[in-house]
Amino acid sequence: MKKIEAIIRTTKFENVKVALEGIGMVSMTVTEVKGRGQQKGIKQQWRGAEYIVDLIPKTKIELVVEDSKVDIVIVTLAEAARTGQIGDGKIFVIPVERAIRVRTGEEGDSAL
Amino acid sequence: MKKIEAIIRTTKFENVKVALEGIGMVSMTVTEVKGRGQQKGIKQQWRGAEYIVDLIPKTKIELVVEDSKVDIVIVTLAEAARTGQIGDGKIFVIPVERAIRVRTGEEGDSAL
Amino acid sequence: MKKIEAIIRTTKFENVKVALEGIGMVSMTVTEVKGRGQQKGIKQQWRGAEYIVDLIPKTKIELVVEDSKVDIVIVTLAEAARTGQIGDGKIFVIPVERAIRVRTGEEGDSAL
Ligand SMILES: Nc1ncnc2c1ncn2[C@@H]1O[C@H](COP(=O)(O)OP(=O)(O)OP(=O)(O)O)[C@@H](O)[C@H]1O
Ligand SMILES: Nc1ncnc2c1ncn2[C@@H]1O[C@H](COP(=O)(O)OP(=O)(O)OP(=O)(O)O)[C@@H](O)[C@H]1O
Ligand SMILES: Nc1ncnc2c1ncn2[C@@H]1O[C@H](COP(=O)(O)OP(=O)(O)OP(=O)(O)O)[C@@H](O)[C@H]1O
Ligand SMILES: [Mg+2]
Ligand SMILES: [Mg+2]
Ligand SMILES: [Mg+2]
Repeated sequence: MKKIEAIIRTTKFENVKVALEGIGMVSMTVTEVKGRGQQKGIKQQWRGAEYIVDLIPKTKIELVVEDSKVDIVIVTLAEAARTGQIGDGKIFVIPVERAIRVRTGEEGDSAL
Repeated sequence: MKKIEAIIRTTKFENVKVALEGIGMVSMTVTEVKGRGQQKGIKQQWRGAEYIVDLIPKTKIELVVEDSKVDIVIVTLAEAARTGQIGDGKIFVIPVERAIRVRTGEEGDSAL
Repeated sequence: MKKIEAIIRTTKFENVKVALEGIGMVSMTVTEVKGRGQQKGIKQQWRGAEYIVDLIPKTKIELVVEDSKVDIVIVTLAEAARTGQIGDGKIFVIPVERAIRVRTGEEGDSAL
């Protein structure tokens, strides 16, 4: 099992959610975060002065999936989150050793 | 070391916290998240119309524990979080390679 | 690749951010969390009564970095986050198997 952790534009979240549903991936956990990448944030103008907004609100999506689903989730997620402009986000894959459904106590891929 | 990451009902958090204290597990990090599982959220009625609330507020608890504590933490946490109804939550176990206490710089199980 | 996950005092965040910039680490994701460590929170006085504030607001910083950067990030982060008082925080290191930049689709260390 793997955890796919994606930090994306908040404005792309609905699009990503629908795209993931389209491949049968409905379970997910969503967190509002802030972040910055290589550009150290973005420059903005305010009353003629330029300043850096260095931590931009982003949306983090976490999905724990069985190994065989990792590639299709990454491709689907990236395509749905992409605008082509800087700041589109990152996807990380992290190993998960066990998964348990609290209601039933069942464990393994069927608990996802 | 392992990170135990549990996404539970917000209403069960106090119960889980007390149960974990009962087995000596007091350290934890808590995040307010939103999520959905297999049911794609829940149906609600409003003025006669039915609509789907698809991202439900949940509470994420993260505990990094030594390997020998993983089983007791999972059992205790699941029991304290359970209502028997759909939406009780998930527990994931993720490997942790190192842990450092910032104040002292110490590393390893004694830093947890 | 590793994910360095640090839970620090919110008041130390700016200091940590600047210190990480100083070693060239600008990319990060930041989440507002609550937590407690070994002390089970802190005692506070209010109108003569003592009570426990057991979940204290903290700031979580996540940085995914290439393996060769892990040690310098940990040392820099811990030094910048330290006050010497209890509650300075924790740093955890978690394996990351893959990293993808959404805009370009590129994968690996160059995507960080
Ligand atoms: N190495 C990293 N570790 C942790 N979080 C990261 C990392 N890189 C990016 N992020 C998160 O992803 C968000 C989006 O990053 P961003 O897409 O700007 O990355 P980038 O490398 O600068 O790519 P681009 O050149 O397309 O902007 C950031 O705001 C941050 O939350
Ligand atoms: N595969 C998953 N990946 C990431 N988060 C998940 C996953 N499954 C569940 N979650 C999180 O756990 C929360 C609770 O899930 P839930 O208990 O409804 O799971 P379920 O599989 O539908 O089980 P049940 O049939 O008992 O409802 C979700 O709101 C979501 O935040
Ligand atoms: N084992 C752990 N698992 C998950 N989160 C933890 C753990 N230990 C600490 N944390 C997080 O780190 C924050 C700071 O912890 P803290 O620095 O008080 O740790 P401590 O072990 O009590 O060290 P100190 O004795 O220096 O206070 C907590 O509020 C919590 O969010
Ligand atoms: Mg960027
Ligand atoms: Mg469910
Ligand atoms: Mg403490």
